[in-house]
Amino acid sequence: MILKIGGSVITDKNGELAPKTDVISRIVEEIFNSEAENLILIHGGGSFGHPPAKQYAIKEGLKKDGQKIGFAETHHFMTVLNGLFMDALIWHHVPALSVTPSSCILTEDGRIKRFDDELLSMLMKMNVLPVLYGDAVLDMKLGFTILSGDQLAAYLSMRFNAERVLVGVDVDGLYDADPKAEKNAKLFVHLTLKELKELKGRMHEPASGDVTGGMLGKVKELLPVVEKGIPVDFFNASKPNYVSKVLRGEEVPGTLIEKE
Amino acid sequence: MILKIGGSVITDKNGELAPKTDVISRIVEEIFNSEAENLILIHGGGSFGHPPAKQYAIKEGLKKDGQKIGFAETHHFMTVLNGLFMDALIWHHVPALSVTPSSCILTEDGRIKRFDDELLSMLMKMNVLPVLYGDAVLDMKLGFTILSGDQLAAYLSMRFNAERVLVGVDVDGLYDADPKAEKNAKLFVHLTLKELKELKGRMHEPASGDVTGGMLGKVKELLPVVEKGIPVDFFNASKPNYVSKVLRGEEVPGTLIEKE
Repeated sequence: MILKIGGSVITDKNGELAPKTDVISRIVEEIFNSEAENLILIHGGGSFGHPPAKQYAIKEGLKKDGQKIGFAETHHFMTVLNGLFMDALIWHHVPALSVTPSSCILTEDGRIKRFDDELLSMLMKMNVLPVLYGDAVLDMKLGFTILSGDQLAAYLSMRFNAERVLVGVDVDGLYDADPKAEKNAKLFVHLTLKELKELKGRMHEPASGDVTGGMLGKVKELLPVVEKGIPVDFFNASKPNYVSKVLRGEEVPGTLIEKE
Repeated sequence: MILKIGGSVITDKNGELAPKTDVISRIVEEIFNSEAENLILIHGGGSFGHPPAKQYAIKEGLKKDGQKIGFAETHHFMTVLNGLFMDALIWHHVPALSVTPSSCILTEDGRIKRFDDELLSMLMKMNVLPVLYGDAVLDMKLGFTILSGDQLAAYLSMRFNAERVLVGVDVDGLYDADPKAEKNAKLFVHLTLKELKELKGRMHEPASGDVTGGMLGKVKELLPVVEKGIPVDFFNASKPNYVSKVLRGEEVPGTLIEKE
């Protein structure tokens, strides 16, 4: 099972380096209480990763020497956010190991190219929770780029043939319009692959500072997962108890996407 | 060139989680001022890594479930110490990337077995400083173990055919007795491989909480490096300007070890 927690859930996206430590702590408690096994946890960057990545155009690759410090900064800020997660996990006595994407993954033109999955297999066999995150990584064509937590979630779910991908965001799921802008936006409770493809065609790039494409980015990454027959669950990780409920397989409001 | 900075230099080994942030900052400034290129920086664990590693017997491998949280803790504490180094580097505008040993190295019976060096090659080509550290890592036989910064320094110097290995410790170099206990201990200014082997036979395991064998551990790891013809320089990284001097190839008091 793959659990992805969006950066907007665990940080204040309007701030800079603004973690929501109370939310991180609550989510960790819910993971602990769910007693989930064979889980991989992935989190996004929020106000830690996106501002430096945007400022230095890290996603676009190395073009000028001056970007290098931005590459260093983006990764370093992500390790700080990840450290808060790891702190909370260890505080709650969850044996967990942070797996640094930039230390074990090489991309090519923005897509994961080299990754040795032995490490994750060993951790899961040992019942130690692997924690990964969106990161600035080395790219064989671009020099460096941004690897989103969404690409990671999609890649790992397919590589390990996950039972289900749980995508925790700060709204209830996928809507027919932006629920933060339009009060009457309608939540999709269920979508098929065909319907998801249609929805994708109607979605827009986010106007904000999200360098990994916001909801549209998530849908793009997760399409091949649904295509492979792995169900994807969008749910609201900002709401208490939703994380532990989805981990236990209980129903919460959200969008379930299945192939048919 | 490989620069290893001992944990006793950057932390108070008598404390717990006791960093010497002023020393870290000074060393980073000295690295910056030396304008060294093609450098790999490695640091030890000091009072961050050794106490939990010892408490939970991490080096000996996974024998009881209760050790798992100690494995998680040891790595997490090391990321905190490493974070202080990375903070200082980025603050001084040094483009540097922390390369997490436990995310890219698997050991077998305590020795490095799997490591993809492409990442380090790419970083050095890009002139981004790779920073590694002693860490709790997964082991194909033991489950997990401790990988010392010394083993890392030796391994990487041989893999990348380093020009020289610089080992910064909190004394001037190798002595004929423990310089902290015996006032009249004599510093070796120069040692050949043969002399180093003889010295090794007379050295003792450290009595303290050092899980990686203290000076004897360093000598054991670095013997094959000297054997391969790579000179090893022990020097005092606690003394101001010594780091920048050795990086520039200037002489400082210390122990130079050469094959002949």
